[in-house]
Amino acid sequence: MKLMIDFCVVPMGVEGSIARYVAACQRILDAEGLSYSLHANGTNVEGEWDEVMAAVKRCHEVVHDMGAPRISTSMRLGTRTDRSQSLRDKVESVQALL
Amino acid sequence: MKLMIDFCVVPMGVEGSIARYVAACQRILDAEGLSYSLHANGTNVEGEWDEVMAAVKRCHEVVHDMGAPRISTSMRLGTRTDRSQSLRDKVESVQALL
Amino acid sequence: MKLMIDFCVVPMGVEGSIARYVAACQRILDAEGLSYSLHANGTNVEGEWDEVMAAVKRCHEVVHDMGAPRISTSMRLGTRTDRSQSLRDKVESVQALL
Amino acid sequence: MKLMIDFCVVPMGVEGSIARYVAACQRILDAEGLSYSLHANGTNVEGEWDEVMAAVKRCHEVVHDMGAPRISTSMRLGTRTDRSQSLRDKVESVQALL
Repeated sequence: MKLMIDFCVVPMGVEGSIARYVAACQRILDAEGLSYSLHANGTNVEGEWDEVMAAVKRCHEVVHDMGAPRISTSMRLGTRTDRSQSLRDKVESVQALL
Repeated sequence: MKLMIDFCVVPMGVEGSIARYVAACQRILDAEGLSYSLHANGTNVEGEWDEVMAAVKRCHEVVHDMGAPRISTSMRLGTRTDRSQSLRDKVESVQALL
Repeated sequence: MKLMIDFCVVPMGVEGSIARYVAACQRILDAEGLSYSLHANGTNVEGEWDEVMAAVKRCHEVVHDMGAPRISTSMRLGTRTDRSQSLRDKVESVQALL
Repeated sequence: MKLMIDFCVVPMGVEGSIARYVAACQRILDAEGLSYSLHANGTNVEGEWDEVMAAVKRCHEVVHDMGAPRISTSMRLGTRTDRSQSLRDKVESVQALL
């Protein structure tokens, strides 16, 4: 099953900018060879369900290892059986109507 | 790694009440032996990361099998390394301050 | 327009338990006279759109005043024109199928 | 209070592509003169709290008017008192570390 997610990892109990935690998660997605796209409030990822979810788990492990005692992630998960659609397709299908 | 989630499965492209889809997901959580609690806008589940996530995947599979061509799930994921805390503990820690 | 939300206020950049911030938000909902219900990963609130949203804004203001330099809230918003449904109705419509 | 949101409006009970509903919301953001950015799973918007939230309410009204009997929106809300930061700043602060 193909999965498209948008997730935002929020480290809690740490001071200052969270950019370095987000950057660490981007490196995990890169290392896993997943297709992803960073935006201002999260990251879109697409791939097979198990691969995408393994990367999210790895992000939690790494952010804890970097010192965050607690993590609150918010995530949207999209699956569909009617047709396949990429991250780019979704944006273009809207832009075609503007 | 222990995981606590709050998830809300939204079947798209189907008419009428979505209660039967939510009920199917409750049965999956029951069958998996997970600790969970239904509320008006989602369900809280706690357990080992892989077990909780396997149940979420199963929910998507079953809701598609029931006829929904598309699913949009929103989920909060909480992990922590500082201490263990159950669903009940979280509510009680707030209520103790009211 | 009636609105039903489920929201979870996450104070960032602060140490220790966040229970006192959540408790402060419960007091705001009480003071506003809104119908709400706390669960392990958030709070459900129902009411007129503008009243519910004014309370969410007040929560952000108060949590900042309590010392959190940054807040990340995740929220589900539900509106419907087909029929009216309370927080209790939603849970009961699922439980009737179990 | 400045607010940055990421929101995803999910029309329920309607068949086929939801691109036309998303496009209608983009037009609302345009008409309100808000700074926003569409991505594959939502839209980032920044501005004054009341202006951003008025646009979200308008999106719900318009999507109902277009025929959706029910809407489930998921939203992340970020506010901060430590410094001001734009949508672009957030992405660049991460990319500078990659």
